[in-house]
Amino acid sequence: MSIHNPPVVLCFSGHDPTGGAGVQADIETLSGLGCHACTVVTALTAQDTANVRFLWPQQMDDFLEQARLLIADLPIDVVKIGLLGSAEIASAVGGLLEKELAGIPLVLDPILAAGGGRELARADLIEVIKTALLPKTCVLTPNIPEAQKLTGALDPEDCAAELLRLGCRHVLITGTHETRGNVVNRLYGPKETVHWQWERLPHEYHGSGCTLASALAAGLALGMTVEQAASQAQAYTWRSLEAACSLGRGQRLPRRSILSPVA
Amino acid sequence: MSIHNPPVVLCFSGHDPTGGAGVQADIETLSGLGCHACTVVTALTAQDTANVRFLWPQQMDDFLEQARLLIADLPIDVVKIGLLGSAEIASAVGGLLEKELAGIPLVLDPILAAGGGRELARADLIEVIKTALLPKTCVLTPNIPEAQKLTGALDPEDCAAELLRLGCRHVLITGTHETRGNVVNRLYGPKETVHWQWERLPHEYHGSGCTLASALAAGLALGMTVEQAASQAQAYTWRSLEAACSLGRGQRLPRRSILSPVA
Repeated sequence: MSIHNPPVVLCFSGHDPTGGAGVQADIETLSGLGCHACTVVTALTAQDTANVRFLWPQQMDDFLEQARLLIADLPIDVVKIGLLGSAEIASAVGGLLEKELAGIPLVLDPILAAGGGRELARADLIEVIKTALLPKTCVLTPNIPEAQKLTGALDPEDCAAELLRLGCRHVLITGTHETRGNVVNRLYGPKETVHWQWERLPHEYHGSGCTLASALAAGLALGMTVEQAASQAQAYTWRSLEAACSLGRGQRLPRRSILSPVA
Repeated sequence: MSIHNPPVVLCFSGHDPTGGAGVQADIETLSGLGCHACTVVTALTAQDTANVRFLWPQQMDDFLEQARLLIADLPIDVVKIGLLGSAEIASAVGGLLEKELAGIPLVLDPILAAGGGRELARADLIEVIKTALLPKTCVLTPNIPEAQKLTGALDPEDCAAELLRLGCRHVLITGTHETRGNVVNRLYGPKETVHWQWERLPHEYHGSGCTLASALAAGLALGMTVEQAASQAQAYTWRSLEAACSLGRGQRLPRRSILSPVA
């Protein structure tokens, strides 16, 4: 019996017990799109669907032990980074990208705050993201507030120009944090800017950014171009939000399980 | 737009970076079978597809903080327990089952050793499983070595009798650890014993027990009887193993993503 192995995406993400965001978003999305997810937890969290309450970043040595054993065993096609939790963990990830993971395409979702508002990245972590991770990033997926915080610029065009100058090859800036009109997402990179418009959905969602970045990583792992991957990732994410379920008192949880693969 | 919310299964499990076992097995299985998984990590591990190398159980207070916030927010239909990691975490889980989770059906997969052989439960943890968790268990899913270790008996019939005496309502003893012939799984409980035979697959697999217990929990959450849930869980697991992929140097990884729901 011949075995067709799926591509493997390595995710460095936080763990969210509610199942909306973090490693669960990665796992459900990648699995749903035909990839094998493997994950190293950067931080455990206590949270509900309303907000993140506590964050426990891993110890750097333990984190590296877990990551190195995994990388030595599985053939990684794409790396996806979500919540990092601490500057130490971010530096450790930077070291892995420099050495064990050199040359493997990287999708970086720069999570700086929880949907409920809690700040999730101190100044020292933001500095490591800018100096050690952005230059190794194939696609960065900030929302507008994240793009602004990373650059100090206000206008999305200016943010994108500065992020590209810092070294990432493509930036997909999402417009979900605007309050009205259609959601406009823009992909900036070496070629002309591409934009997509999506009907704005009426609720708030727990893990939409994680879903988008993972779906984009899946597309790259499956051999799509950045533009194709960005396009199918938005379609997948939009459908998971449209089908989201309302289980807790806070934001809705994306429903990724009932979606048939787009790829 | 009306929302049909899926049933929710709360999993207390270890985290396995390879994605074969632990929370990832829970998430992929439950999501694939139409449930929403929420997970509280009992222990982080460093492992590859060959064996578990290190185990870091959570601190009890952090674990309880994460679990209580989640339980207060999401409506839990079924609880599934996998790797516990320490007697302290097992006791904390026992306390939650006594109070916040009282009356909710429990599937307990008593993980005592890794597939690669590493012991994962010391004597004090086994004692807590027997005294605090077994009496609250609806379905226990040991393999034969686990059933023997929990009871001191040798014959599966004797093991089952002792496990039922200790207080769990049903015991599904799996025969995958035998070395030849078909795999025979037996469900013991208040009514007559039911058994199933499955063609023995030629390889070793990383996370087959987690997949089985999660699929069983999914069945209960979807309203099946214990016998129905046990039957579909075995079929789902067998198919995920038959389709398993060979990505690492050790055991194969179950492939749960390409399976259509059985339910």
